[in-house]
Amino acid sequence: MGKGHDDCTTTSHGNIDLVEAAVGSVGSTNLFEKTDHSTMLIKRGIAVSPGTAIGQVLVLGTETFRIPSQFVSVDAVDTEIARFHSAVDAVCREIGENEQIASDHLGKQYGAIFAAHQQLIRDPDLIEKIEFLIRDNCYAPEFAVSKAIRHYARMFQSLGNRYMAERVSDLFDLEKRMLRQLLGQSREELANLSHPVIILAKNLTPSETAALDKRLVLGFATEAGGRTSHTAILAGALEIPAVVGIGRFMADVAGGETVIIDGDSGEIIIDPSEETLKDYRRRFREQQTEAARQETFADVEPITKDNVRVSVMGNIEFPTEVEHCVSRGADGIGLYRTEFLYLQTDVEPDEQTHLDAYRAVLREAGGQPVIIRTLDLGVDKVPPSLTRGYPEQAAETHSALGLRSIRLSLQHLPLFKTQLRALLRASVDGDVRIMFPLISTLMEFRKARMIFADVMEDLEEEGVDFRRDIPLGMMVETPSAALLAEEFAREVDFFSIGTNDLIQYTLAVDRAETLVSSLYTSGDPAVLRLIDRIIKAAVAADIPVSVCGQMASDPDYVPLLIGMGLRQVSVTPHAIGQVKAAIRRVSVEQAEAIATHVLSLETARDVESYLRNVRRRQESAA
Amino acid sequence: MGKGHDDCTTTSHGNIDLVEAAVGSVGSTNLFEKTDHSTMLIKRGIAVSPGTAIGQVLVLGTETFRIPSQFVSVDAVDTEIARFHSAVDAVCREIGENEQIASDHLGKQYGAIFAAHQQLIRDPDLIEKIEFLIRDNCYAPEFAVSKAIRHYARMFQSLGNRYMAERVSDLFDLEKRMLRQLLGQSREELANLSHPVIILAKNLTPSETAALDKRLVLGFATEAGGRTSHTAILAGALEIPAVVGIGRFMADVAGGETVIIDGDSGEIIIDPSEETLKDYRRRFREQQTEAARQETFADVEPITKDNVRVSVMGNIEFPTEVEHCVSRGADGIGLYRTEFLYLQTDVEPDEQTHLDAYRAVLREAGGQPVIIRTLDLGVDKVPPSLTRGYPEQAAETHSALGLRSIRLSLQHLPLFKTQLRALLRASVDGDVRIMFPLISTLMEFRKARMIFADVMEDLEEEGVDFRRDIPLGMMVETPSAALLAEEFAREVDFFSIGTNDLIQYTLAVDRAETLVSSLYTSGDPAVLRLIDRIIKAAVAADIPVSVCGQMASDPDYVPLLIGMGLRQVSVTPHAIGQVKAAIRRVSVEQAEAIATHVLSLETARDVESYLRNVRRRQESAA
Repeated sequence: MGKGHDDCTTTSHGNIDLVEAAVGSVGSTNLFEKTDHSTMLIKRGIAVSPGTAIGQVLVLGTETFRIPSQFVSVDAVDTEIARFHSAVDAVCREIGENEQIASDHLGKQYGAIFAAHQQLIRDPDLIEKIEFLIRDNCYAPEFAVSKAIRHYARMFQSLGNRYMAERVSDLFDLEKRMLRQLLGQSREELANLSHPVIILAKNLTPSETAALDKRLVLGFATEAGGRTSHTAILAGALEIPAVVGIGRFMADVAGGETVIIDGDSGEIIIDPSEETLKDYRRRFREQQTEAARQETFADVEPITKDNVRVSVMGNIEFPTEVEHCVSRGADGIGLYRTEFLYLQTDVEPDEQTHLDAYRAVLREAGGQPVIIRTLDLGVDKVPPSLTRGYPEQAAETHSALGLRSIRLSLQHLPLFKTQLRALLRASVDGDVRIMFPLISTLMEFRKARMIFADVMEDLEEEGVDFRRDIPLGMMVETPSAALLAEEFAREVDFFSIGTNDLIQYTLAVDRAETLVSSLYTSGDPAVLRLIDRIIKAAVAADIPVSVCGQMASDPDYVPLLIGMGLRQVSVTPHAIGQVKAAIRRVSVEQAEAIATHVLSLETARDVESYLRNVRRRQESAA
Repeated sequence: MGKGHDDCTTTSHGNIDLVEAAVGSVGSTNLFEKTDHSTMLIKRGIAVSPGTAIGQVLVLGTETFRIPSQFVSVDAVDTEIARFHSAVDAVCREIGENEQIASDHLGKQYGAIFAAHQQLIRDPDLIEKIEFLIRDNCYAPEFAVSKAIRHYARMFQSLGNRYMAERVSDLFDLEKRMLRQLLGQSREELANLSHPVIILAKNLTPSETAALDKRLVLGFATEAGGRTSHTAILAGALEIPAVVGIGRFMADVAGGETVIIDGDSGEIIIDPSEETLKDYRRRFREQQTEAARQETFADVEPITKDNVRVSVMGNIEFPTEVEHCVSRGADGIGLYRTEFLYLQTDVEPDEQTHLDAYRAVLREAGGQPVIIRTLDLGVDKVPPSLTRGYPEQAAETHSALGLRSIRLSLQHLPLFKTQLRALLRASVDGDVRIMFPLISTLMEFRKARMIFADVMEDLEEEGVDFRRDIPLGMMVETPSAALLAEEFAREVDFFSIGTNDLIQYTLAVDRAETLVSSLYTSGDPAVLRLIDRIIKAAVAADIPVSVCGQMASDPDYVPLLIGMGLRQVSVTPHAIGQVKAAIRRVSVEQAEAIATHVLSLETARDVESYLRNVRRRQESAA
């Protein structure tokens, strides 16, 4: 485990290697005081991407400023103080220009506000304090400016007068202006990182997350966000340890501190003590051992004890993940989420962008089936380019019960058709199957199928080559779709059961809401009856059915699902090993007995404890 | 239809009487221009409480200032200008005091911000403009100050520089300070209204809504809010015409304008033309005719053509509404929502408050059954007193899938027990039945029943009188509860089907989200199968079952529900007449044939058009 930059990375599901970003000595958060470790601060949020990351903090504010390093060398102090003074001059000039514009357009009296700002930033006390921090603490000017201005802001706030407290925004304005001068005019983009960092932010948009460079972003933590947000899913797919939904903590970090992201417990630790750092190294080694154990199942066939073959496929978010599935012996890609295509840029992806991604996945999959799901985003998550023209309130919807997934596609046909064209064109390169998400009525599926037929006609007219027999399936993830499974089974080519959403809607509970998340459980009898019903309907209609939600990754539930008649699952790549192991521990006959018993139980608690006991018995028998 | 203040009221469901608040001549929104009607502005939102209201605008900002009248008489101009000048002086003194505090605590340079504000408000141009508006337009000083400062704010914003645009908050600060001086120090409370007004606000909290005085608040419209928000439900219960979810419009009103609230179409019309006013008077008369027709069903018995009696009860929010049910010949109260008890004050209601309300309802109900539902609020809607101690993120939950209803009660036992104690104590005064909302698992119902038993034990020890045989029922409104209806029917005393939430969760669609609301329909085949299943389970277990969601108020669905076996509905008071009429148009045999056919249909469109045709045939046959 080195201390240098070159081998900085993270511990995560698969590729595990604990390293720390070099952070020099660890900074204190007390103003005008020397470094000590009494400032260690632990915050708890929602763990959304497992693994541990340790590194130096990069704070992303509304405007992104990276304070590149907290300290400067003693020799550089004079140069840095000079740099600080030119920044002050530049900010004063800038304010002066604004004053001029205001005076010209509105009248001289409006200029006074700007003059007041100039006076603030030229305040000799403030300047003296910043100089002190640079000279005596060897703080970088950016760090010193931020510390000193925030110190004054707190004093302002402490006066206990709302009117005064509002004036704090004036100070933050000045801080921003100073940092912009010190760091250069352009807003620093995440794309321009040069050293490994840990990102702390109020929020990361899915597109920002998708653009993260895994080699340089060791982990991240945000104030906002929930377990099933796309930011969280992307973090998991990128295998970047992440914690979201922490609540307010940004006031406690300035940037440059050391932080630990614990993507398993959901804790972040700012300015950790040596003791804590040691502890995290120990935990890391345990994780490594378990991961290695799972890898031994890579070449093992997923057959039951009585030799029934169950298909185990992988869920992926990025073309590069196909490799994670292939290397673990998956039977193909059971769920390729195409959201990242929309999230990684601010413009709508064109047909070629889609096509390139699909071809990359098909190439890597080497002839195995690839089930590609069309856009499954909420209107709150897609880039503005896709929602332009929608009423303003669209921005305020909750995604879970609002305009998302197939609903968005059906209301935005050019976007939908672009994706379908690319899918059809890719079909000549491999075993493409198409799946529509969040279907809740037969009409929706029929509309989607009709548009698909339109697109085929267009391509035919254009003389473009494509396969006409691409299977069209659907996610069964709303209670309404599950209840009409028999009717749907007559019209669709395959089902994929999205247990995450199905549980959420059936129980009316968002698992990301910590205060009710205990109600969210795979073991709920109503949910299990719906799943049983869906599987039976598919078997009766002789169409393939798989489960691609997290339930399929849980070894406790694998025998139950087999007992209900399921012969295909699709799971996150890192769970492929444990699912194969679970399949090999049970016979179909045993599984059916398990299912019969479970479907007679009335509460989730009974279901869970029964399935847990079954697994324990099987494991100790093996 | 008078023009004076005394008879100002609204047209609404029941008590219909169109009157306008006297507004003198209608004000223009153009600065420095004389009144004209080219400024008529129509905004569209979500209609949440039917009826029409016409009156003078009261704008509620974050700080509530009512501009009591837009104009002053010519004689008063000099006095009003003097009043304006003393307000300027007072604001300058106030700012001066703040400057002193800032200088003392932070240093003189911080005082400059305040000096700049003084300079702004003393600006001769601004003062001249305000004087002009008072003298030449006979504007009240409050109105003139607001107009003039907002005029400058727009100019500031139009400079197209973000930094400048942010300075607009300085101007709004000054406006607030001036209004506070002109109108008196205390924030004007809604409770202190002296004239009828129409309220326009960014948002109204449920507690603000519950506190509205129906005689003085003719209607309201808000920027925020959705169809099923409690603010909306309260508006309906109060029979105050209301439109919510309009999006930004507050910048376009200053207060004092005339506005029409159309609670049927969801439109609000600011500064309507004479033409429009005339049009609204015409529409009003049509509404009046239809309402009168419904009233003729008050004394008619709800029996089918083959003499099967169906029980028609009323849904209420306030004890005063019992009368609306009784006068329409209801068979009792099928749903008494107790949320208003929690919303009308900022402190948790005590046992006596509950008891008084329950006794009032029972007294009015005169021995008829009263089904009282325990607290059905989301954590986002209850007053802070009830959520103190919860993590900060609680405030950010969406209520639909979060901590609400029985979930909140089970996590806040003192609150729950207070309500249960009052319910038990009230039970000696009438036919009380208790219903738990949003039950999604058997465990939840069992927990609630256990707590109920605890409370009975407590009362017994205290020697308090209560009935031991109070029926304990549940709302069936989550798909999970519907799917386990057989199991629930063995444990609960009655079901009440909450179709609104059941549709929402089954289809995963929030009907308040305009972009997807077309998916929300009572005719969805999956929803209808669940309802059929719930009714059958109740009938098999021989427990009462009713429908209390909006589906029961729709005459198209009444025959279908009867055909499924339902013999009890509970509807909003104003729908009682039309539901009785629908019951009397059908025989049970016909209804059963209708249900059989409907349950074989695959799409909501087929269901809706079939039921519509059935009703038309019945109506023309009658």
